[in-house]
Amino acid sequence: MAQPLRIALAGLGTVGAGVIRLIETNAALIERRAGRRIAITAISARDRTRDRGVDLTPYIWEDDMTAMAAREDVDLVVELVGGSDGPALTLARNALRLGKGLVSANKAMIAHHGMELAALAEANGAPLRFEAAVAGGIPVIKGLREGVAANQVNRIYGILNGTCNYILSTMEDTGRDFSEVLAEAQAKGFAEADPTFDIEGTDAAHKLSILSAIAFGSRIDFASVEVSGISRILAADIAQAEALGYVIRLIGMAEAEGGRLFQRVQAHLVPFDNLLAHVDGATNAVVVEGNFSGRLLFQGAGAGDGPTASAVVADIIDIARGMDTGFEADRTFSIPVAGLEDMAPAATGNRLSRAYIRFTVADRPGVLAEITAAMRDASVSIESLIQKGRNEEGGEVLVAMVTHEGPESAVAEALRLLEGSASLTAPPLVMHILGA
Amino acid sequence: MAQPLRIALAGLGTVGAGVIRLIETNAALIERRAGRRIAITAISARDRTRDRGVDLTPYIWEDDMTAMAAREDVDLVVELVGGSDGPALTLARNALRLGKGLVSANKAMIAHHGMELAALAEANGAPLRFEAAVAGGIPVIKGLREGVAANQVNRIYGILNGTCNYILSTMEDTGRDFSEVLAEAQAKGFAEADPTFDIEGTDAAHKLSILSAIAFGSRIDFASVEVSGISRILAADIAQAEALGYVIRLIGMAEAEGGRLFQRVQAHLVPFDNLLAHVDGATNAVVVEGNFSGRLLFQGAGAGDGPTASAVVADIIDIARGMDTGFEADRTFSIPVAGLEDMAPAATGNRLSRAYIRFTVADRPGVLAEITAAMRDASVSIESLIQKGRNEEGGEVLVAMVTHEGPESAVAEALRLLEGSASLTAPPLVMHILGA
Repeated sequence: MAQPLRIALAGLGTVGAGVIRLIETNAALIERRAGRRIAITAISARDRTRDRGVDLTPYIWEDDMTAMAAREDVDLVVELVGGSDGPALTLARNALRLGKGLVSANKAMIAHHGMELAALAEANGAPLRFEAAVAGGIPVIKGLREGVAANQVNRIYGILNGTCNYILSTMEDTGRDFSEVLAEAQAKGFAEADPTFDIEGTDAAHKLSILSAIAFGSRIDFASVEVSGISRILAADIAQAEALGYVIRLIGMAEAEGGRLFQRVQAHLVPFDNLLAHVDGATNAVVVEGNFSGRLLFQGAGAGDGPTASAVVADIIDIARGMDTGFEADRTFSIPVAGLEDMAPAATGNRLSRAYIRFTVADRPGVLAEITAAMRDASVSIESLIQKGRNEEGGEVLVAMVTHEGPESAVAEALRLLEGSASLTAPPLVMHILGA
Repeated sequence: MAQPLRIALAGLGTVGAGVIRLIETNAALIERRAGRRIAITAISARDRTRDRGVDLTPYIWEDDMTAMAAREDVDLVVELVGGSDGPALTLARNALRLGKGLVSANKAMIAHHGMELAALAEANGAPLRFEAAVAGGIPVIKGLREGVAANQVNRIYGILNGTCNYILSTMEDTGRDFSEVLAEAQAKGFAEADPTFDIEGTDAAHKLSILSAIAFGSRIDFASVEVSGISRILAADIAQAEALGYVIRLIGMAEAEGGRLFQRVQAHLVPFDNLLAHVDGATNAVVVEGNFSGRLLFQGAGAGDGPTASAVVADIIDIARGMDTGFEADRTFSIPVAGLEDMAPAATGNRLSRAYIRFTVADRPGVLAEITAAMRDASVSIESLIQKGRNEEGGEVLVAMVTHEGPESAVAEALRLLEGSASLTAPPLVMHILGA
């Protein structure tokens, strides 16, 4: 029988406990598929005493997780600690420097330090995998890195954050407002106590920057992702979008345009007949458009202990399968790190888009004339405009419009013209319409 | 620079020409991702003279395609000839016996001879891949074999035949009858001149039997797939289904139940809120349910030269990436062939299903009483029943019913009781309702 693959597991939150449960539950099947046993040797976490619902006594406890990589009885480190820096990063560096493999579910760490870690992996002949960092249980990194490897990828876009999608689709179903649905999501465990990273788009941006690098052969550039979240979306926006034939979804989108990289996380209006319009609840979905494959959709649970553990252990099995032949350490981002391009961020002003713009305005004469004049002066062509009746609680009304296709710079110019206007009681909200 | 991977290409139909076009168009990108150049050395097809829209002069022409495997300048054979036996099979055997890799898009050959070929691959240390044999450009074999490798798969099901899906969704959109839409599909190139394999479900059954083996670790058992097609579906069935909240789709479904294998290709009623209800046109979609991953959906173009070529070249790149480390030859069906189980076909009688049953009956008194009595006597509980008004052209009317959930054997018994009845002018049509 082949030697087992001996792993150290750092981080015992829901995902870490899920990985243990998965490796135990499916042990016989995993051994057949991996060609060897997956043996957890050492484990570590911040708090040794917490009850995690799994028996930890079969495993050696290490107080210092960063030291686990150096253990002689460890071939592979599984990092489920989280956080872009700190012990997770130290452990990752230690593992790769020692030529041991690293499997991680840590999107923040990969988004910020993926290039350094991939270079370390290559230099030391160690495999680095992070399927679980993007879209939970969906094998979309494998799909991009291997499944569409023959294609020039034109565009990737999708629903990358389950919390936001749960909130938006619940707002849609119930007509309730953001804050109310968020509170309920927190109570149900679908949103964190501090939901900032999710609802402001940071989490989706981490994932998008990782996918971009693989899809376009570019160095990860998280800092250039244009990010906005969903916290300003009103029940009225969702109702308005629905009346026009759209649902609202937080979309991460990336394109390579003339050697430049476009990356944006923003709530979009998604036409009812688009694949992503039917993605509800905490589900994730990613569309990949290749020049030969055409449009591919990968959809599934974007979070949760089971799905995330499934992705973590898939990476472990891949590595176990390759143990006898030697690791493939230079394909972390599909091509060796030295070959990844430093793509400048795309200028978005010339992008042709249709936009939904919602103004919160004082209820007094002349406001509509002021807004429409600004649109005219900036050459923004209005396709439809709806002024909602007076809000009962105050003197504010909502004006929502959808523009014809035009350069994004024109909309920006119109909003600049309206800046400081006493008619606007809050900054306008812009959401683009997801195009075919 | 690494040695190129030298391939021989057999079969120059639309897919073969597509593979050449893809390898030429994306050459630089493929070389970066594969770590080496993919060099087509020899080509072969039945007819040398046909214009295929690609320049064949750079490649050596071999009249005898089965001899290509033996060429010293060939590392890998790409078989795009088709047909379960004949030259395709001879070539495949020749390649694997010589320890050369084989990439194939030939679902019929893999469904009938996949076990023999996988054993040959293992014995000779040669890689065998066939992503393009199932669901065109969608990397669903990779998804099953690697992406969900950590899971016990409970069920796989999906839309595996683009021709049928095009016909059914066009019938739905236009209200036209099967034969008319089929003729149009043939004119547009969406259906073959002899469409039997597609419309009678054989093609979907080939694909399903391949997916089953990977998902459940069973030996391919194409002969046991229960198969029916779509040629008996009427516009009236589609209208009836729609009125009840369903669309009709040809679904391939497989489950492992207590060591037995259930495999069925049959038109199903798919609830509007199911993922597969929105899959229109020549699109394929596969749902995989794992015990940790939950439900995953893979969707995309199920046929066409571009998508199929994308899958073929993805396999080639996978093999090219592994050339330096040695081929992984024993994972064709996820586990070595010797470990695949010989699973007996599941008895379907005890399956609990809801069914749509449509009777074509003579328009005379007592027919409904006869049908409902048979249902009662077989203990089939009727949820809804609709008798369509008299057909203008004759004395036939349609009676459609949906049953409550019950054992499939009860429906079979009811139909047995009605066999030979003078009231029925055609055999009843049974379609199951796709359950959650």
